Amino acid sequence: MIKAIVNISLKKGVLDSQGKAVHHALDSLHFEGVDDVRVGKQIVLQLDTKDKEKAKKDVTQMCEDLLANTVIEDYEIKLV
Amino acid sequence: MIKAIVNISLKKGVLDSQGKAVHHALDSLHFEGVDDVRVGKQIVLQLDTKDKEKAKKDVTQMCEDLLANTVIEDYEIKLV
Repeated sequence: MIKAIVNISLKKGVLDSQGKAVHHALDSLHFEGVDDVRVGKQIVLQLDTKDKEKAKKDVTQMCEDLLANTVIEDYEIKLV
Repeated sequence: MIKAIVNISLKKGVLDSQGKAVHHALDSLHFEGVDDVRVGKQIVLQLDTKDKEKAKKDVTQMCEDLLANTVIEDYEIKLV
């Protein structure tokens, strides 16, 4: 059983409107000293395999095919 | 300058409909061996401070007040 953690974030330079909204909300709540906020996704997959190499390959394919929009998003895979 | 990474996930036992939808989509694309999918958020904050202790305290307060819905969500803070 392998746990794969996929962090998906908007590429640098892509407008992050959700991040901007959170930043604005933090300002409204008087949290000071926040320079930037970016909001991404974290997808946690439980894989029924013990083969780390296969797991990495499979999850990379999942990211390319479905999980991430590679035009505007970067992804990062961690296996636990 | 401290970077705070906040991972927000639904608590165990809370129905994750987005995770279910992703799981179903992966099945449709013939990815096999996926036992479970959970979808959460990752919020990255750039903080204009060098005081790690203050940063941790501030970000915890941000999570409690705005970033996480603590009734149904857990959060985890990492400072980089």
